[in-house]
Amino acid sequence: MDQNPLRALWAADKPAVNGWLSMPSAVSAEIMANAGWDTLTVDMQHGMVDYQTAVSLMQACATRDVTPLVRVPWNEPGIIMKSLDAGALGVICPMVNTRAEAEALVSSCRYYPKGARSFGPLRANMRYGPGYAANANKEILVIPMIETREAVANLDDILSVPGVDALYVGPADLGLSYGYEPKGDRDEPELLEVIDHILAVAKKHGKYCGIHCGAPSYARKMFEKGFRLATIQTDAMILMNAAKAAVKATKEGGGDDGGAIY
Amino acid sequence: MDQNPLRALWAADKPAVNGWLSMPSAVSAEIMANAGWDTLTVDMQHGMVDYQTAVSLMQACATRDVTPLVRVPWNEPGIIMKSLDAGALGVICPMVNTRAEAEALVSSCRYYPKGARSFGPLRANMRYGPGYAANANKEILVIPMIETREAVANLDDILSVPGVDALYVGPADLGLSYGYEPKGDRDEPELLEVIDHILAVAKKHGKYCGIHCGAPSYARKMFEKGFRLATIQTDAMILMNAAKAAVKATKEGGGDDGGAIY
Amino acid sequence: MDQNPLRALWAADKPAVNGWLSMPSAVSAEIMANAGWDTLTVDMQHGMVDYQTAVSLMQACATRDVTPLVRVPWNEPGIIMKSLDAGALGVICPMVNTRAEAEALVSSCRYYPKGARSFGPLRANMRYGPGYAANANKEILVIPMIETREAVANLDDILSVPGVDALYVGPADLGLSYGYEPKGDRDEPELLEVIDHILAVAKKHGKYCGIHCGAPSYARKMFEKGFRLATIQTDAMILMNAAKAAVKATKEGGGDDGGAIY
Amino acid sequence: MDQNPLRALWAADKPAVNGWLSMPSAVSAEIMANAGWDTLTVDMQHGMVDYQTAVSLMQACATRDVTPLVRVPWNEPGIIMKSLDAGALGVICPMVNTRAEAEALVSSCRYYPKGARSFGPLRANMRYGPGYAANANKEILVIPMIETREAVANLDDILSVPGVDALYVGPADLGLSYGYEPKGDRDEPELLEVIDHILAVAKKHGKYCGIHCGAPSYARKMFEKGFRLATIQTDAMILMNAAKAAVKATKEGGGDDGGAIY
Amino acid sequence: MDQNPLRALWAADKPAVNGWLSMPSAVSAEIMANAGWDTLTVDMQHGMVDYQTAVSLMQACATRDVTPLVRVPWNEPGIIMKSLDAGALGVICPMVNTRAEAEALVSSCRYYPKGARSFGPLRANMRYGPGYAANANKEILVIPMIETREAVANLDDILSVPGVDALYVGPADLGLSYGYEPKGDRDEPELLEVIDHILAVAKKHGKYCGIHCGAPSYARKMFEKGFRLATIQTDAMILMNAAKAAVKATKEGGGDDGGAIY
Amino acid sequence: MDQNPLRALWAADKPAVNGWLSMPSAVSAEIMANAGWDTLTVDMQHGMVDYQTAVSLMQACATRDVTPLVRVPWNEPGIIMKSLDAGALGVICPMVNTRAEAEALVSSCRYYPKGARSFGPLRANMRYGPGYAANANKEILVIPMIETREAVANLDDILSVPGVDALYVGPADLGLSYGYEPKGDRDEPELLEVIDHILAVAKKHGKYCGIHCGAPSYARKMFEKGFRLATIQTDAMILMNAAKAAVKATKEGGGDDGGAIY
Repeated sequence: MDQNPLRALWAADKPAVNGWLSMPSAVSAEIMANAGWDTLTVDMQHGMVDYQTAVSLMQACATRDVTPLVRVPWNEPGIIMKSLDAGALGVICPMVNTRAEAEALVSSCRYYPKGARSFGPLRANMRYGPGYAANANKEILVIPMIETREAVANLDDILSVPGVDALYVGPADLGLSYGYEPKGDRDEPELLEVIDHILAVAKKHGKYCGIHCGAPSYARKMFEKGFRLATIQTDAMILMNAAKAAVKATKEGGGDDGGAIY
Repeated sequence: MDQNPLRALWAADKPAVNGWLSMPSAVSAEIMANAGWDTLTVDMQHGMVDYQTAVSLMQACATRDVTPLVRVPWNEPGIIMKSLDAGALGVICPMVNTRAEAEALVSSCRYYPKGARSFGPLRANMRYGPGYAANANKEILVIPMIETREAVANLDDILSVPGVDALYVGPADLGLSYGYEPKGDRDEPELLEVIDHILAVAKKHGKYCGIHCGAPSYARKMFEKGFRLATIQTDAMILMNAAKAAVKATKEGGGDDGGAIY
Repeated sequence: MDQNPLRALWAADKPAVNGWLSMPSAVSAEIMANAGWDTLTVDMQHGMVDYQTAVSLMQACATRDVTPLVRVPWNEPGIIMKSLDAGALGVICPMVNTRAEAEALVSSCRYYPKGARSFGPLRANMRYGPGYAANANKEILVIPMIETREAVANLDDILSVPGVDALYVGPADLGLSYGYEPKGDRDEPELLEVIDHILAVAKKHGKYCGIHCGAPSYARKMFEKGFRLATIQTDAMILMNAAKAAVKATKEGGGDDGGAIY
Repeated sequence: MDQNPLRALWAADKPAVNGWLSMPSAVSAEIMANAGWDTLTVDMQHGMVDYQTAVSLMQACATRDVTPLVRVPWNEPGIIMKSLDAGALGVICPMVNTRAEAEALVSSCRYYPKGARSFGPLRANMRYGPGYAANANKEILVIPMIETREAVANLDDILSVPGVDALYVGPADLGLSYGYEPKGDRDEPELLEVIDHILAVAKKHGKYCGIHCGAPSYARKMFEKGFRLATIQTDAMILMNAAKAAVKATKEGGGDDGGAIY
Repeated sequence: MDQNPLRALWAADKPAVNGWLSMPSAVSAEIMANAGWDTLTVDMQHGMVDYQTAVSLMQACATRDVTPLVRVPWNEPGIIMKSLDAGALGVICPMVNTRAEAEALVSSCRYYPKGARSFGPLRANMRYGPGYAANANKEILVIPMIETREAVANLDDILSVPGVDALYVGPADLGLSYGYEPKGDRDEPELLEVIDHILAVAKKHGKYCGIHCGAPSYARKMFEKGFRLATIQTDAMILMNAAKAAVKATKEGGGDDGGAIY
Repeated sequence: MDQNPLRALWAADKPAVNGWLSMPSAVSAEIMANAGWDTLTVDMQHGMVDYQTAVSLMQACATRDVTPLVRVPWNEPGIIMKSLDAGALGVICPMVNTRAEAEALVSSCRYYPKGARSFGPLRANMRYGPGYAANANKEILVIPMIETREAVANLDDILSVPGVDALYVGPADLGLSYGYEPKGDRDEPELLEVIDHILAVAKKHGKYCGIHCGAPSYARKMFEKGFRLATIQTDAMILMNAAKAAVKATKEGGGDDGGAIY
C-alpha cells in the first residue's frame, strides 16, 4: 500500500482541491475523475448516493487514480466500515460534536488495538495491495465535521482524540447553529471568526482543516488562511448551474460562451 | 393527448432550446429537467444510454413535464418503437441518407395505415392519456439526421417522404463526410453553405430544421438563420467543462466565479 | 415552497387515500402515481426498497406531483435525513414507543433550532424551490407509528413532543403486542378500543391520525371514525391479489372480469 | 434437460394461462411467479424491459420454476439468441408477415443444421443442465405473431416453415391492419372470423395457437375455440387497474373489497 | 412454512458447507446457487452488497432453493428486520461481544413476545407461505459472531441469551484482538485453543458453531472438531484466485488445467 | 491517444492472454481486471451483458488500464458504434461469413472515408484523449469471428477486406457447422486441420489470429502454432468450476486446496 496521496499532499504543505460526488452515476463520477480534482469525496450524507452506488463511484475514481474519500451519512459503525472496505482513503463524518462521538468515529476507522474496525477489506485489499492490513491504520484519514456551536465548544476535546487527523468545516450547518441562514461561503464576521478559531485550534493540535466552499475565489481565500482542503460545490450543483447558464445564454444572449464552459 | 409542445412551439414560430441527455442517470436528468430547456433529447446513439436507462430519463423529464425526444442508436424498428412506447414525442434518427431510409424511419414511427409501428404504448398511454392511440400519428415528430454528403444530395427525396416532420443537422459527421475534421459549430465556408442549403431545402418543403451546437452564441446565430431547434452540447460535456473550469479557477485563480456557474 | 398538500388536505378536513410503494421499481411507482392516490408512501421498512431506490420512487411520484411520504426503516438519523433531502414531505417512523424516541425522531426531521437535521436538501431544494430551507420545518410532517402496548401507554408523552404532527397506527404489530396474530383490518373488540383510544388522545392533542388498512370498506370506516389518512394494502399485495384473481378467473371461470380489473 | 413444460402441457391438450412481464423489476416478476400462471412471457417489445432486465425476470421465474417465454422486440438475430441463452424456452416474435421472416426467426432459434443460432447458452446450460445443447432444437418453441392482414394472407407459407411450433395472435395490431381501432378482446365479426381462420389454418398444419387477451372470460372463450395459450393483460395493467379500483372503492365506496383483491 | 433446512441438517448432525456472496450480482449469485453449497450467506458487512442487492441475491438462491442466510453489516434493528423480511433464514451478526448485544440481536430477529421484530415479511411470506408468521420465531436462526477477546470472555453470557441458536467464529478479527495479524485458517496454538474453547462452551449450552475458513482441508478439520457450518472463502476470492491461476498457467505453463477448474 | 496496447503486444510478436467478461457486474469485472489478463473482452453476445452494463465493465477495466475489447451481439451498426464510443479498443464480431459481412463490420468501426462510423466518442474521447478522433481508425482492432464452414470457404474474401485486422476462431460453432458437438478445445483431426488452415490463410494475409480456449495448456499449444490471442473460458465458468471444486473438496476431501485456488 502506497502512502495516502492526500497525506502526501499535506506533508508537502499543499492544499487539495476536492470534488464532491452527489449524483448516483459512475458515468458522471468518471467525468469528475477526469476533471483534475486532487481528491473526490463520495457524499453518502446529502448526496443522492448510498453504499452500493458508492462502490461504483469509487471504481470511477480508480479509472484515473483520484484519491477517494467518503462522507458517511452518520457516525454509524456499519456504514463507516463498509466505506473503508470499499476503498475510501478518508472518512468525513457529519455532526461530530463531542469527544465521545469523535472516539466512536475513530474506533470505526481503525483496526485493533487502535479501534474496533472489523477486518475484511475486500475491495481495498484488491486496490491497494497486500500491505493494506498493516498500513490502513496509518494511512486512512479520519475527519470529523465541525458544524455546530457545540462542536466548536468541544474543539480541544475532539482534537485530542488519538486518531483524529483533520477537521472539515460545514458552513451551512455551522451558520444555522449560530442563528444564520444555511448557506455556503460565509461572510458574516461572527462566523468568519468561528472559522478562524477552528483553524487555529486545529493547527495548535497539529491537525489539518478542510472546508466546503462554493466559489473558487472563496476556496483560494481559505487556502490562504491555512485550510488544506477545499471542496467546490457538488457535481450536481456544477451541472445545474452550468446548464442553467447555457439555457440562459442561448435564450437571452450574453454570457461567456466561447471559453471553457461550452 | 395534448398537442406535442414542440409542435406548438414551432406553430408559434418559436425556436426550441434543446438539452441533451447522454449520462445514464435519472438524477442528472432530473437536474437537466429543472434547468429550463424547452425539450430534452435522450441520446441512445452517442450517449452512454440504452433503452432501460432511457425509460428512467424520460421519467425524469416528466417530473417537470419537459418535452422528451430521443435520438435512437440506429434506424432499427425495434428500438424506435420501444422509444415511442416509452413516451418519446419525437425521434431523431442518425444517418438517414436515402429516401428508402427515410421511409423506413417513418414506417417505424407511424401506426397503420401510415406505417407499421406495432401497437402497445404502455408508458405513452399512461403519460399522455387515452387519446394517445388516435393522435400519436399526428403528434409524434419524425426527424431524420442529415449528416453526410449523400444525404445532402438526396435532400429532396428525403423531405418528400410523407411523415418526415423536420431535419436535424449533425455537424461533426457532416464535416467528416466533406473531408473536414469532426467537430461542432462549423465555420468553414463550404460547410456553412451546405448548412444553409439544408435549411433552404427544408423550408421549401415546409419542414423545420434543428442542429447540434456547442456555444449558445452559435445556436443564436442558427436561430437567426431560421433553425427552429438547437442543442447546446450534452449534459456530459457541460459537467466536464464546468468541473474543469472550477478546478482551474481554484488552482490558478481568475475566471468568473461569482456568478451563475459556482 | 408551496404548502405541503397533505397539510392542505387536512386543513380542509379531508381524508387522504394513501398508496404504499414496496416494490423497488420506478415503473411500478409511476403506475401507482397515475392511479389516483392522494399521497404515496415509499416504504423503506417492510417494503423491498432502500434509499437509492427510494429516490427513484420519489421521482416517479413527481411525474404526477403526488405527495411523497416515506416510512423509514428505523428511527435512525442518517436515513431519516437522507429521505427528507430526497424530497419526502412526511416521515412515518416505526416503533416509536417513548417520549425520548419521539424527540429523537423530531430532531432528525427539523432544522436548528427545532432539531438537529443537517442542511443539504439537494433534491428537495430542486423540487420545492428556494423557499425550502425557510419552510421545511413548518411543512414536513413528522408521524410516529403507534404499534405497541408500550406506545399506547405513552401516548400523552409522545403526543406532547413539539413537532409531532400526526400518528400512524400499525395494526399488525399493535395486535401482536396485545397477544393477537399479526394481521390488518382488526376487528377484535379490545383492539378496536385501543384504536379508538389512540384516535381520541391524538384529537385531544390536536393531532391527526392515519392507519394502515387492507380493504377499502375498512378504510372508509376509519375515515368515519375520524382518521385522516388510510393506506390501502401495498402495491405488491395489490398486484399479487389481482394477478391471482386473474389466473383463477381464467382457470375456473366466475369472478368479475368485465369491469375495472381486467 | 427436461421436456419444455409448455410442450408437455400442449401434448396433454391442456391450455396454458400465460402472464405477461412488462415491468422491469425482478420483484414484481417474482410476485407474478407466485401467482399461479402456467407460463410467464418477458415482453421486450412493448414491455418496459430490455435484455439486462429480462435476465433478472427470468431468474424471478426460476424461483418458482414457472416456464419462461420471451417476446423479442423485433425479428433480429442478436436479441433472439441472447434471450435463448438467458434461458427462454420459447420465443414469441412480433410482426412475422412472410415466409422469409418466419425462416429468419427459426434460423435464429435453432442450432445448425436447423438454423444458425450461435452456441454459448451460458444461463440456459446452468438452468437446464448438460443436455441443453442436444435438446434445445427440440424443446425451444418458435412462435411467430400473426398480427397483420399480410400475415393472414401468408398463413400457409408461414406455417409450412419447418421449426415454426405455434402462432400468437396480436389482436390490437391485427385490428389496426383491418381498419379497426387498436384494442384487445375483439368482438367485431370480421375480426372474429379472421381469428377463427388463423386457428383453423394452424390446426390444419398441426400447430398450436395463442392469443393476447384482456378479460379472463374472453380467454376462456378462446380456449373453447381451441386456443392453447392465452395471456391475461400485462402485470402493468393488472397493477394499474387494481390500484385504480382500490382508490375508487375507498373514495366512493362500493366495489368488491372483501374478496381476493384487497 | 417448512422447517429451516439448516436446522434440519443440524438436527441430523450433518455439517453445512456454506458459500459466501460478496459480489453484488444476481448472476454470480445464481452461479453460486448452482455449485452445490448447502447454504449461501449474503454478506452485507464486508461483502460489496447492500440491502437492495441482497434481495436480488436471495432471489438467486431461490432459483435452486439453496438456504439463504445473511451477515448483516452491524447489530442494527433496521437492517436486520429488512433482511428477514427479504427471506433470510438466518442472521449472522458481527461483533457481538456482550450479553446486551446478544439480547439486542435476538430482539431484532424475533416477533413479540420473544423480541421486537416488526411485522411485515413481504418476500418471506411469499417465499415460505402463510405459516411464516406463526413459525418464523422457531425457524429463523440467530447467530452472533464471536470475534473478539471480549466476546470470548462473555461466552456464557452470550450463549445463555434465549434465542441464540449458534455462534459463528470470525478468525481474522479474533486473531487481531489477540495480537495476531488478521487472516483466516488460524494455526497459532493460542488461537486454536480459543477456537476449541468457543466450540466447547457452545456445546455445553447445546448450541451449534460455524466458522469462516479458507481451504477446504481446514474446513474439514473444523467439521471433525465439531463445527457444523464452515464457509469456504468468498465468491470474490474464489473468482480472483481461480482467474489468477488461469492466467499464470497460460503464461507459465504448469498447473492443473485438465480438471475441474478450467 | 496512445498506441492500442494489443497492437503493441502483437507488434512485439507477443501473445495476449485474454479474459472474458460475461457476468454483468462491475465488481466481478474489477476482480478480473486485477487478475493479470493482458486484455479483457466484454461479451455482449453470449455473455449476460448488454450495452449499459458493458460501459460499467469497461470502467472496471480502466481501474487497472487493462485493454478492453468487446464481442458484439451481432454485426449491427448501432451496437458496434456504441461499443466503440464507450471505449472498446477492438471489436470481435460473431458469424462473419462473407466478404459483404466483413465490409459491413469494417464500415461500422471506421470513420469516413474508411467507413461510416458516426462521430461522438464520448467516453473514448475522455479515456484516450484528444487524439482519439485522428487515431481511432488506425488503433481500433476489427476482428471478425470465423466459426462456420461458409466463413472458412470465404477466408480469402474476408481477409482481403481493408480494415480487417485479425480473426477470432469460435471452436464451438465451428465444430457444429462441421457436424460435431458444440464444445471448446477441439481435438478432432478434421477440425484441427481447419483451425490450422484458418491460421495459415490469416498469416498469408499478414493478419493475426485469436481463439477461444478452455484449458490453459490448450491455449499454450495455440500460441505455439502461432495464435496471438487466446481466451481462457469466461469469468462465469471460472467461478462456477472453482466454486464446485471448493464444495467438492470440502465435502469429499482431496483436491488441491493449499495453493493458489483457496
